[in-house]
Amino acid sequence: MDFTVETATEAVVDSFRSTEDPRLREVLMSLTRHLHAFVRDVGPTPGEWEAAIDFLTAVGQKCDDTRQEFVLLSDVLGVSMLVETLNGVEEGTESTVLGPFHMTESPRRDLGDSIDLLGTGRPCVVSGRVLATDGTPLPGAELDVWQCDEEGLYDVQQPDVQPPGNGRGLFRTDDEGRFWFRTVVPSPYPIPTDGPVGTLLRVTGRHPFRPAHVHFIARAEGHRPVTTHTFVADGPYLDSDAVFAVKQGLITDFAESRDERAAERFGVTAPFTHAGFDIVLAPEVTVNCRE
Amino acid sequence: MDFTVETATEAVVDSFRSTEDPRLREVLMSLTRHLHAFVRDVGPTPGEWEAAIDFLTAVGQKCDDTRQEFVLLSDVLGVSMLVETLNGVEEGTESTVLGPFHMTESPRRDLGDSIDLLGTGRPCVVSGRVLATDGTPLPGAELDVWQCDEEGLYDVQQPDVQPPGNGRGLFRTDDEGRFWFRTVVPSPYPIPTDGPVGTLLRVTGRHPFRPAHVHFIARAEGHRPVTTHTFVADGPYLDSDAVFAVKQGLITDFAESRDERAAERFGVTAPFTHAGFDIVLAPEVTVNCRE
Ligand SMILES: [Fe+2]
Ligand SMILES: [Fe+2]
Repeated sequence: MDFTVETATEAVVDSFRSTEDPRLREVLMSLTRHLHAFVRDVGPTPGEWEAAIDFLTAVGQKCDDTRQEFVLLSDVLGVSMLVETLNGVEEGTESTVLGPFHMTESPRRDLGDSIDLLGTGRPCVVSGRVLATDGTPLPGAELDVWQCDEEGLYDVQQPDVQPPGNGRGLFRTDDEGRFWFRTVVPSPYPIPTDGPVGTLLRVTGRHPFRPAHVHFIARAEGHRPVTTHTFVADGPYLDSDAVFAVKQGLITDFAESRDERAAERFGVTAPFTHAGFDIVLAPEVTVNCRE
Repeated sequence: MDFTVETATEAVVDSFRSTEDPRLREVLMSLTRHLHAFVRDVGPTPGEWEAAIDFLTAVGQKCDDTRQEFVLLSDVLGVSMLVETLNGVEEGTESTVLGPFHMTESPRRDLGDSIDLLGTGRPCVVSGRVLATDGTPLPGAELDVWQCDEEGLYDVQQPDVQPPGNGRGLFRTDDEGRFWFRTVVPSPYPIPTDGPVGTLLRVTGRHPFRPAHVHFIARAEGHRPVTTHTFVADGPYLDSDAVFAVKQGLITDFAESRDERAAERFGVTAPFTHAGFDIVLAPEVTVNCRE
């Protein structure tokens, strides 16, 4: 039977019928249907399809050990966030994208330490508690933190700047589930624009900026880990994050505090800039239906 | 407003609203809708999405000057054929995919020349006419021909084998629109399987073979060029071409002929293997609605 506009999709779907892994079979059949629907919808000329192939090839070839351009493409198309949201839990702190800068292990630090090793930018204290959904504090929870510096750059983007690990820290909550550390207020920054994804943003009139944020992964025994951000309130791009990761519930005031007792506890002097928020972890799922 | 499962797609679609080129805007908005629909449909885990990203990255990184793995991926997903079919014309010889082996210019040859420079395989004569849709012969039409050898390999796949240009020829039809040349009967062959697309075929239980064929591009003044194949009748894989390119109307007998007069005209001795078919070109479209 000929491959016609009418029979094309089912012919390709059918070619995957012998796939042993049922999940892979389901995904490929669905991919075929949606991809063909897209092609029918826009009816690309051969030249347009060639341009699409060239773009995807360039995205793959931009990737190396410290750059993942396909993740960036997935990010700017909102797919990373969609996958994250579809996998989210009802309860607890909302999750957002991991992003492309969690590529090195964060150095273990003590509560109260500073993750700012450069001494540039506006100093601040970040503090809060890790809690279960019923409000029980979670002592010994692990908090992996990473953020950019005053220039909007992560340590991995400037490998020449010493010492390494600036803006990163791995903390453990105290007996009352509390964490606190010193840092500088992060800056908004552009995602890397020197690759094909940057070209895509330019030709579509989209800016490459992300609103200022601190990344977190919080983990505690018996609970589901969460990958999330804290966004700095009132900054630019909160309404137009290039990767669609902002959630209103994750926006936090980085405000001036005159609280002398808090200052003493955090090892700073008042007035100081303070961001306070709690992270709530949902209970672990003990049965995974997919396995 | 938060990026939720409900608002995700329209938020990304809306981010492309300022795209200057209206066609690019239309394509990206459609891509976003179909890509998000796929992701919602299968609900990938973060690990599955990471595996998809890794696969696409590997496809891009397999590409070089003589290998286009993304074209191969488009081929095995039937998208190349779908694009070709959507751009096809109602009249004249049907088109099929260009394929990945038309990468060098074919050497100009005289009618009756042999494109087989190796002397292996079953010799045969290919002949026919290039015609307009009303049956008028088209003298001076150009016929670009390429095919694999007895081993199923194109010249570009074995750069060490001399002379170059084996299996390729650029012919011009005579005063009566006729063409004829000598060659060997092409073999079925596997598409390259040493890359991620080969892995995809293996894990889905699909074979990588294409039925035996000769590629053509025919061009004549005042007519639309056609990119097509002639498939060898009765061979394997006609029902399961790895790239879905077979059309029943393009299957041709490579049969034994005892016609002494034809043999003399073709410069061979009877009996000889002969494939005869005409190529019909649709009239040129003078107004392109898209421009
Ligand atoms: Fe970030
Ligand atoms: Fe071929």
